[in-house]
Amino acid sequence: MKADKGEWKLIEWIRSHTRLDPNVVPIGPGDDMALVSLGGESQCLLTIDALLEGTHFDLSKATPRQVGYKALAVSLSDVAAMASKPVAALAWVGLPSDRDMKFAQDLSAGMADAAVKFACPVVGGDITSWNQQLMTVGTAVVSRPAGIRPVRRSGAKPGDLLFVTGELGGSLLGRHLTFTPRIQEARQLAALVTIHAMMDLSDGLSTDLNHICRESGVGAEIVAEAVPVSEDARKLAKADHKEPIEHALNDGEDFELLLAVEPVDAQDLLKQNPLTGVKLTYIGKIVEGSGVVMVTGDGKRVPVAPRGYEHFK
Amino acid sequence: MKADKGEWKLIEWIRSHTRLDPNVVPIGPGDDMALVSLGGESQCLLTIDALLEGTHFDLSKATPRQVGYKALAVSLSDVAAMASKPVAALAWVGLPSDRDMKFAQDLSAGMADAAVKFACPVVGGDITSWNQQLMTVGTAVVSRPAGIRPVRRSGAKPGDLLFVTGELGGSLLGRHLTFTPRIQEARQLAALVTIHAMMDLSDGLSTDLNHICRESGVGAEIVAEAVPVSEDARKLAKADHKEPIEHALNDGEDFELLLAVEPVDAQDLLKQNPLTGVKLTYIGKIVEGSGVVMVTGDGKRVPVAPRGYEHFK
Repeated sequence: MKADKGEWKLIEWIRSHTRLDPNVVPIGPGDDMALVSLGGESQCLLTIDALLEGTHFDLSKATPRQVGYKALAVSLSDVAAMASKPVAALAWVGLPSDRDMKFAQDLSAGMADAAVKFACPVVGGDITSWNQQLMTVGTAVVSRPAGIRPVRRSGAKPGDLLFVTGELGGSLLGRHLTFTPRIQEARQLAALVTIHAMMDLSDGLSTDLNHICRESGVGAEIVAEAVPVSEDARKLAKADHKEPIEHALNDGEDFELLLAVEPVDAQDLLKQNPLTGVKLTYIGKIVEGSGVVMVTGDGKRVPVAPRGYEHFK
Repeated sequence: MKADKGEWKLIEWIRSHTRLDPNVVPIGPGDDMALVSLGGESQCLLTIDALLEGTHFDLSKATPRQVGYKALAVSLSDVAAMASKPVAALAWVGLPSDRDMKFAQDLSAGMADAAVKFACPVVGGDITSWNQQLMTVGTAVVSRPAGIRPVRRSGAKPGDLLFVTGELGGSLLGRHLTFTPRIQEARQLAALVTIHAMMDLSDGLSTDLNHICRESGVGAEIVAEAVPVSEDARKLAKADHKEPIEHALNDGEDFELLLAVEPVDAQDLLKQNPLTGVKLTYIGKIVEGSGVVMVTGDGKRVPVAPRGYEHFK
């Protein structure tokens, strides 16, 4: 589940107006997934994500098959963020009435690509049409802890070291359509070290790290030079005369993992990256206080405000 | 989950292109809900429904709170159709960027109305905005069998008697916003008699009974005079000079139950309605063959084609 700035206010409002029984809903709104009890020992995790044409994809730059893949992969990235294991997905699509069956089949084939790759079958859906020019598509995914305790956003503690997978920024150049949800990596890391907090980077490091801080009641310090800036972020920076790091902090849709690791365990990760074929980078640490600051090469401390993509301001 | 005529073709296509492991997904696409295994004995049911402004509601006639209620109630009607018990819901909303926080709060309050009434807490969601004039909203719901085996659409047998709850037609006059998902009634009936097939009437009796027939490989005969025609259907018929029964057959969004009951058990239901405050009406029977016919007062046999609302023709 995504959570942008305006949305955040609404989530706070919903939270304050909802009484959830913690026995039935151990993890409620505001995390990457909710955790619910199905009676007895049985639990499952739930997430939902909506993609809107023009906001999350552009059909002049993406094929319907890519959009279908992205729709499911976005929710699977939430499955990764909780270090859980996918069970099944549901999909819905709202199509302009002039789109044809072939378009819907391509979309469905793209979802199937993600479903097969990440062992998360699409078991149902809802297809509707309307007299608008743009389409909407989305998925809900159910996962299960499968032996690993779900990792929340709210458990970060001062002293924890911060890591990210992959490289950040510039996903608009294509990676936002083709990214790999880090399900395997999240479960591998959670089995190796104590992760106090984790989320997937959907709104950009600046926004998402501020979420972890807010939810955990802590602050964070990141090291500017440590942030893994993608080649795509550099390309965009050349074109728009911004700094590459701005793209890495604020672009969003990286769908990489951000994790706060218990300091003693973190030493193991500093010595050797246990992941195969995926970068794992130390970027800073959790501190007392609130908010995020970035320490630059010349020792300046720059506040990092949430500047990722914001819906519903 | 809804399933209209064009959608049906797509579902057939998806089914034929998807290999689902029946141990993991005992009930897949095409029923009111999917049933999935969470490992061990643990199972849950899943459904998703999307509402599109202009197609499923009209904000000049419905308050945002009513729309929120309907969004969740539509999925809860699927929970009823499987005779299952709600566990939790997820919601998403795509809003035109000029709608304000108050609007979103009202929508959320409407969902909470349904959540509280039917013990199905909203545990998460996704809120996004776009530059379109119309909004979309929907929910995914997880339920559990809770001691009653899920009732499918595909189990109807020749000789079964057909029943519906409530009265049909004309829901557009308001009932489509305020209906009561028949969760309690479905579970009560499933605990009393053997229900071979059940679904909720979302697309209209003509469309939905044809679905049951198609899925079960049988035909059906309904008695025209037995169909419970609502007062609203009569009102609409007066205005548009159609027959009230046409509205009862084709209007859709009744969200009542349609059930095929094992013939010996059905005798009990004919003698006495076990439901409190909800009509239960015998409307006909399942027969060998295919398709639906309606027997009129003068003995004519009229074929009943699926004429409910069709998306994505």
